[in-house]
Amino acid sequence: MEFLVNPNVERYINSLLKVDNVVEEMEEYAKGRGFPIIGRQGGYLLYLITKIKKPKLVVELGSGFGYSGYWFAKGITDGKVVMIDYLQENLDRAREFLGKAKLLDKVEMRVGDAVQIGREYKGIDILFLDLEKARYMEAVKSLEENLSEGGIIIADNVLFQGKVLNSKNDRKAKVLDSFNRYIHKHYDATILPVRDGLLIATKRL
Amino acid sequence: MEFLVNPNVERYINSLLKVDNVVEEMEEYAKGRGFPIIGRQGGYLLYLITKIKKPKLVVELGSGFGYSGYWFAKGITDGKVVMIDYLQENLDRAREFLGKAKLLDKVEMRVGDAVQIGREYKGIDILFLDLEKARYMEAVKSLEENLSEGGIIIADNVLFQGKVLNSKNDRKAKVLDSFNRYIHKHYDATILPVRDGLLIATKRL
Repeated sequence: MEFLVNPNVERYINSLLKVDNVVEEMEEYAKGRGFPIIGRQGGYLLYLITKIKKPKLVVELGSGFGYSGYWFAKGITDGKVVMIDYLQENLDRAREFLGKAKLLDKVEMRVGDAVQIGREYKGIDILFLDLEKARYMEAVKSLEENLSEGGIIIADNVLFQGKVLNSKNDRKAKVLDSFNRYIHKHYDATILPVRDGLLIATKRL
Repeated sequence: MEFLVNPNVERYINSLLKVDNVVEEMEEYAKGRGFPIIGRQGGYLLYLITKIKKPKLVVELGSGFGYSGYWFAKGITDGKVVMIDYLQENLDRAREFLGKAKLLDKVEMRVGDAVQIGREYKGIDILFLDLEKARYMEAVKSLEENLSEGGIIIADNVLFQGKVLNSKNDRKAKVLDSFNRYIHKHYDATILPVRDGLLIATKRL
């Protein structure tokens, strides 16, 4: 698929989004290594949802070097974000970046299997999925009982470069399509065409 | 501009969004008359934000026949949405539709100038702008002091079919571009490429 959102529109939206030096540095870091991040629009959206929700507990499955964690931490006033990644070196970078941004007091970092570690946390106000795409269904089924009342699920890459629209021959796209259908069946949800597709869902009233 | 979001992607997202008979009827009504509405994706987004925010008071400037008001009212658990439109006949339709959906107990309807009537309300938790585009700046400047702490502004049509990207020769697009810049300067905000562009902003922490 050529593109999800008109690139000129994305450019206009991004041109309005101001960030501090640490974010710029993180974006450079991602660009230089081809490390996939949620992007500035996605980051702002996480930040706004966090400000509106006022969560005590955010749990991230697949934190990478801390780009999304930065935005959650920035939005939290009284609570914490648990950042989980299977690579120690990713979280080492995250600790550097979030340290510079003076956000470490709102952050807990854990190395290991995201789903397994995530299950240790109950009363999750925002569950963020950005782990291996083939594990999205497993992740939500393992962790949905740990959501608080009114808990939110946010998942990145749910459009998967448009591959979910015709997922027959792509195993990951097939999992993501099933995930999207499962979430829309059991939650109040929508997908926002931000970067690679951001799903937002809340438990039913 | 050809399109803001890839139409196949919009179709995929919309196919996942289930609605009740009243919404289907409202969408038919809009289609039949070429009446612009926020659309199903936009509606779900208003609903989700309302569920997360739990507002006591939502004020809509430019309610039309009640499509957006339906989604706010559906998301409100303890509060009300004030629907304002300059045409009595629009609000008569809104009363019919929201009556069928059994949502009238969460709704107050007012006929007249949206900005002027809006100013009567203090402590607005969500201010929704969907009035004449040339009035967006006037509306936000007149009403921002009436927002509650942590108040949210949501505005529809802020991409204006892409015309804000090059607004020199279009007066309305110019106002919308100024509005977008004003909001991003003074609020935490982003624009979501949903239908014709939805801006979401919260007061700075």
